[in-house]
Amino acid sequence: MTSLPSEATLDPSNWDELRALGHRMVDDMLDYLATVRSRPAWRSVPADVRARLAEPLPLEPTPPAAVYEQFKRDVLPYPTGNVHPRFWGWVIGTGTPFGMLADMLASGMNPQVAEFDDAAALVENRVIAWFVELLGLPAGTSGLLVSGGSMANFVGLAVARNARAGFDIRTRGVQALGTPRLLVYASSETHSSVRKAVQLLGLGDESLRLIPVSSDYRMDVATLRSAIAADRAAGRRPICVVGNAGTVNTGATDDLHAVAAICREHDLWFHVDGAFGALAALSPELRPTVAGIEQADSVAFDLHKWMYLPYEAGCALVRDQVAHRATFTVAPSYLATLARGISAGGFPFAERGVQLSRGFRALKVWMSLKAHGVRAFAQLIEQNVAQARYLADLITAHPRLELLAPVPLNIVCFRYIGPGLKAARLDALNRELLMRIQESGVAVPSHTLLGERFALRVAITNHRSRREDFDLLARTVVEIGDMLAGD
Amino acid sequence: MTSLPSEATLDPSNWDELRALGHRMVDDMLDYLATVRSRPAWRSVPADVRARLAEPLPLEPTPPAAVYEQFKRDVLPYPTGNVHPRFWGWVIGTGTPFGMLADMLASGMNPQVAEFDDAAALVENRVIAWFVELLGLPAGTSGLLVSGGSMANFVGLAVARNARAGFDIRTRGVQALGTPRLLVYASSETHSSVRKAVQLLGLGDESLRLIPVSSDYRMDVATLRSAIAADRAAGRRPICVVGNAGTVNTGATDDLHAVAAICREHDLWFHVDGAFGALAALSPELRPTVAGIEQADSVAFDLHKWMYLPYEAGCALVRDQVAHRATFTVAPSYLATLARGISAGGFPFAERGVQLSRGFRALKVWMSLKAHGVRAFAQLIEQNVAQARYLADLITAHPRLELLAPVPLNIVCFRYIGPGLKAARLDALNRELLMRIQESGVAVPSHTLLGERFALRVAITNHRSRREDFDLLARTVVEIGDMLAGD
Repeated sequence: MTSLPSEATLDPSNWDELRALGHRMVDDMLDYLATVRSRPAWRSVPADVRARLAEPLPLEPTPPAAVYEQFKRDVLPYPTGNVHPRFWGWVIGTGTPFGMLADMLASGMNPQVAEFDDAAALVENRVIAWFVELLGLPAGTSGLLVSGGSMANFVGLAVARNARAGFDIRTRGVQALGTPRLLVYASSETHSSVRKAVQLLGLGDESLRLIPVSSDYRMDVATLRSAIAADRAAGRRPICVVGNAGTVNTGATDDLHAVAAICREHDLWFHVDGAFGALAALSPELRPTVAGIEQADSVAFDLHKWMYLPYEAGCALVRDQVAHRATFTVAPSYLATLARGISAGGFPFAERGVQLSRGFRALKVWMSLKAHGVRAFAQLIEQNVAQARYLADLITAHPRLELLAPVPLNIVCFRYIGPGLKAARLDALNRELLMRIQESGVAVPSHTLLGERFALRVAITNHRSRREDFDLLARTVVEIGDMLAGD
Repeated sequence: MTSLPSEATLDPSNWDELRALGHRMVDDMLDYLATVRSRPAWRSVPADVRARLAEPLPLEPTPPAAVYEQFKRDVLPYPTGNVHPRFWGWVIGTGTPFGMLADMLASGMNPQVAEFDDAAALVENRVIAWFVELLGLPAGTSGLLVSGGSMANFVGLAVARNARAGFDIRTRGVQALGTPRLLVYASSETHSSVRKAVQLLGLGDESLRLIPVSSDYRMDVATLRSAIAADRAAGRRPICVVGNAGTVNTGATDDLHAVAAICREHDLWFHVDGAFGALAALSPELRPTVAGIEQADSVAFDLHKWMYLPYEAGCALVRDQVAHRATFTVAPSYLATLARGISAGGFPFAERGVQLSRGFRALKVWMSLKAHGVRAFAQLIEQNVAQARYLADLITAHPRLELLAPVPLNIVCFRYIGPGLKAARLDALNRELLMRIQESGVAVPSHTLLGERFALRVAITNHRSRREDFDLLARTVVEIGDMLAGD
């Protein structure tokens, strides 16, 4: 017999010490979140902190409490900033205190959510069923919690590719001889993750047709229709149209009913990128904005954006569960299932996406939906839309601010306009203005280009924002703008 | 001006109540982990619990403490079981109490780790640099923390495809006219996630050449060499060889030096799937087992397997950072960067993988490496290997147990052999035996097929296992086997 040294473990030698440390962490983090309004929305990581974080490989242990002290000194004070009530950059959710605690429970329980016979799988399936109902898709629609919108789009488009290619693409590959070019259509305002997915799936940019938008940033459906017809006539094979529920630039939603009708007519897969916009469906008041989403073959959305939950949580829904599973199933011998025991029933989650090993992100979703109730989320989503309209009103009312796009949802694009400033100067001024606002710590908007114009962009997926925060933003933009215009 | 109702938030109305609940959660979870040995390794979710979890959509809120009580009653008692010292099914890590607390901190701080100017990005880059050093790759090797091994393999193979296709595959797609079939080589023991990646990347099964293994389950390198030559001669284009560092079935490691040499000779991408095996490099004693891994162009491995950290944490390393970034870069206007402010420097993480939104999984890695020290992980990895050898010795020494494969690392494949039992009966008996062991709650091994023989499979990536646990396993297998053989 092999002789073993005395056996080690990563469990603590003193559980009470770790318990005390855990209590301090809970206290500190809740204090951190309760007082976040008093801190800057963002600040750059100082050079001395950067230097301290450039540590050599830690071969020997450091007491857990000392590691935690370093976290508090060098990491916690320099967050992205999205926990702050005036962070509105890109589309980034806030996180919640209760979600944080749920994430701790998930990590401690640490299930492998491939869909063993365990409670975690039941919880995830339940959460998926709830979202199927909320978005109005038919019961039995398949789904999967994923890392976020990029992966959810990838899942939807992977199934679309395989289900509509017209040949066995899993076996033969996209390059199968004698097959036509496969085409995916989406508006020019579509999120870059769709292009990324099309590239990764082996279709290539030449397979992505970007359809222009009208002045409200919604897909020009007539152009879509004629593009499909032209491609068909040329012997190419349209397979999918991506509709947007809330574009990243302006929050525009395509005419999903019209897109759905075109897809039905031509037997195309209808995928909806609803990263944040899909959640508008939770509100009876906003639901008409995304009407037609219930006709999608697949929908991608995030729960860490407009559901405010901590990272990472996205969701992909796929109406045709057979097509869904057929895209991701691989069945090696070590995953063969038995009639009874822990693996009875197989590993359905692994057959709905890229991951085989999967964490329990479903727990924070399940606990948060129950603790807050769906209506609270709907109310907050409505509140963010109202705040966007409030900000748009402030902008419209101010002579030196210009609204640059319609505000159908929660995104406001605008700029400072000084008297007599020319286009190029305006762009440079607003660019500098944005950097100064971020550096001031007052607020974090981000930016985009709209018709070549540099726009300050405020995306409100923040449950901590109040009306006064938008007053402060408008005031600060004007102050900094005036100062820069006077230079 | 739009009028707003009084503003809501998902922050608690009473922070002290949530603080008290958080303390209880810490206490309960640490108790749960400290006492895990006294519970069954796994048990099926009872019908009444299933029924309770089949809840309708929660429109209205439930007090957080009540939600937590339901978690404790219906979820926590029915884990996958991998927190238990005798869970050795598939390859699933254990998780750690300290990692659980780090996950809470990450979730509370809730950064969006796309690589803003924030501490989370610095922490992730530091962790990646540490693993580059540990695996012996050159400084400057690029990397990314991902959800796990499946995604890490996908990342490596995506870069391989794009870097070695010989044409602009991002623009033209795999189906570009006049291009040869692209080929990826891997041993027949390779993990199913490689096949999944090859399918998703649009190459198709016809682009995956499975090379047979010798009796030690390592790739037959001579066959690899002749397959590449034959494909070249036939006008096809070999692009990549996948080497295994620790196969999932038996823990075999291919001759990585030999594979690296072939890749250099033919200008092929050398990807190593080291899901758990790569971590053997942490131990000076075991490092020779995976020698050659440092020559890889890309390496995939998990931290939630043989680093014992909570789900999800995998890592992809890519030697050529230009090729890495070229595969995943998409540059929409709303992600254009500015000279200063929060987004100065761009979003490098988003350009190294599928995700744009990314959570702070790096924190648990960083805190755990520091708190435990690399040597502790190396010691535990050695301990698991010693335990595998100990179990193999127990099996070899017992007349009614048969070892079915070499044990080069931490995986033991074996079966019960009753006197005079024929092959078909042996398979059925061991199948039943496995289900009974799982149902008994004593231990969770899983199974695989080795040369058509049904094998009980024990994969030890568990920091809680002790020698006595393997004694109990061997005893229980013999007991149940004898009982079944006597039926």
